[in-house]
Amino acid sequence: MPVDTIFWQNGKVRLVDQTLLPSEFKYISCGDVKALWHAIKRLQVRGAPAIGVAGALGVVLGVKDSKAASGAKLAREVGGIARYLGSSRPTAVNLFWALERMRSIAENNSARSPAQIKKILLAEAMKIIAEDKAACRRMAKYGASLIKSGDAILTHCNAGGLATADYGTALGVLFEAKAQGKRIKVYADETRPLLQGARLTTWELMHEGIDTTLICDNMAASLMAKGKIDKVFVGADRIAANGDAANKIGTYGIAVLAKYHRIPFYVVAPLSTIDRGIRTGKDIPIEERAGDEVRALGGRYIAPRRVKVYNPAFDVTPNSLITAIITEKGILKK
Amino acid sequence: MPVDTIFWQNGKVRLVDQTLLPSEFKYISCGDVKALWHAIKRLQVRGAPAIGVAGALGVVLGVKDSKAASGAKLAREVGGIARYLGSSRPTAVNLFWALERMRSIAENNSARSPAQIKKILLAEAMKIIAEDKAACRRMAKYGASLIKSGDAILTHCNAGGLATADYGTALGVLFEAKAQGKRIKVYADETRPLLQGARLTTWELMHEGIDTTLICDNMAASLMAKGKIDKVFVGADRIAANGDAANKIGTYGIAVLAKYHRIPFYVVAPLSTIDRGIRTGKDIPIEERAGDEVRALGGRYIAPRRVKVYNPAFDVTPNSLITAIITEKGILKK
Repeated sequence: MPVDTIFWQNGKVRLVDQTLLPSEFKYISCGDVKALWHAIKRLQVRGAPAIGVAGALGVVLGVKDSKAASGAKLAREVGGIARYLGSSRPTAVNLFWALERMRSIAENNSARSPAQIKKILLAEAMKIIAEDKAACRRMAKYGASLIKSGDAILTHCNAGGLATADYGTALGVLFEAKAQGKRIKVYADETRPLLQGARLTTWELMHEGIDTTLICDNMAASLMAKGKIDKVFVGADRIAANGDAANKIGTYGIAVLAKYHRIPFYVVAPLSTIDRGIRTGKDIPIEERAGDEVRALGGRYIAPRRVKVYNPAFDVTPNSLITAIITEKGILKK
Repeated sequence: MPVDTIFWQNGKVRLVDQTLLPSEFKYISCGDVKALWHAIKRLQVRGAPAIGVAGALGVVLGVKDSKAASGAKLAREVGGIARYLGSSRPTAVNLFWALERMRSIAENNSARSPAQIKKILLAEAMKIIAEDKAACRRMAKYGASLIKSGDAILTHCNAGGLATADYGTALGVLFEAKAQGKRIKVYADETRPLLQGARLTTWELMHEGIDTTLICDNMAASLMAKGKIDKVFVGADRIAANGDAANKIGTYGIAVLAKYHRIPFYVVAPLSTIDRGIRTGKDIPIEERAGDEVRALGGRYIAPRRVKVYNPAFDVTPNSLITAIITEKGILKK
């Protein structure tokens, strides 16, 4: 049973505060667009498809109390809300994809009344959620076909139920393999600096009764050398037209290591993650985050306060290192 | 000026408690062998050459109050102390090398009086410290010859003054390059799980005025792909006869990444780190440490308490990935 990560309830966006997991499982409500922007920025909601859903619901939130006198005016407001929400995080394209979808449906319906457009926007956000759920299930089926009973699988960051509206991209594949009765063992990279693997992925996998082992990111190579990893499955935040994939920092290194050890490396992502407007991975904007995410943990400094830090949130894996991309429409092989 | 990491003072072993750095710089005293064993086990003193020094001083500590009636009896006691201290950490060979040196000098002098042997053992420990200091300086000179002004260097874990009796192995090379007026930039891997890079290496480098940037271990690959790393310098805990080198977990992955990106990968270690009794890296014993080192940080859990953890303290880099090993006798190339 996937966690209900983000949904619309009583005129607010309800979401699991992912910064508190695994010690606390708590929902927060965002009653206005600014609160939602901060929830995205602070990673209370994260994961490319979930951020897309957040963007769509954010638009609904933004127009809810609008006093716009006409449909055209409301559609213009939607444009402004979309631009604002789009400034929260630059890399995951699903956010821009969902915002653009909301903006364009408002524009296409600008001849209607503001009340009608509000209803259409809510319906569109619900449709995005429903499509994401269906996409997760289809990706999971395609991906699970690549898994054999007995496989040991490495994953990085969190590409699970908490990253989507359903049970995930890369983790959805593992949940489906388990549901099909395949015996699997999963190694979860802790995923520094924000530890989404340690905090979220292990929690989701254990919840589904999957044999889960937590490792530090720097231990994966050693496991590969010992022949203990059969396959790698990860999600993606933006895939360029040529198949280069941006994902959580550290993914590229794993892809190189997988290549070196001749281990298949799979990316699982819905088509909404593919950005056909971007030719290669070189053009994907990479978010750099605050140095204190690395210097400190839980408010406690683990490094000199004045040390310089390089903290990119993502890296780009070139298509040449990706064995296949698993989407809801099928498996894209090189 | 190197930190005085470990030394003999008033009948006790004084050492910097490295678990408290960088927030606190504090010496502790070990007045008996058991206290020293725990200091090694808990990584209050760590780094292969420094552990070797700790072992030698530990033997001095162990015989200090001995009431052995003869030299032969005292020599037997030394054997027991060496076995006990050798049980603290299995991987760094310098510990066994120093303990064996102490044991054998006691045995070779067992015809002398206990008081004479005690003096000989103290003198031998001082000699080991002096030799380590001299070796650091010589390795640094050899290593610095490989560095050009403008180089950006990646290092992993801490192979600095805190890991030796002087200013380090890999970091000694960087200190010497800086002293020679070469302009260098250093990226320090934080080195999970115990963060020796974040806590110790950045602290040492900044203290010497070297341009230092802290990264998470999983960010090194991305820097390499961008052409931002010119050379890698790391230490070693045990080197097999064929040149395979055990070092802090994560080193092997960096070596693979360096190879893939055609970046020279250098290991800096004194000859006492080479274990001619071990043919290849496969036979080097690798310490596995407690899972809570990964699950928790500063007493706070960052992962589910019941999650399985794989926590090897070291990995082995095959000689084929090592560009050269820098010792106090010169540079060993493939």
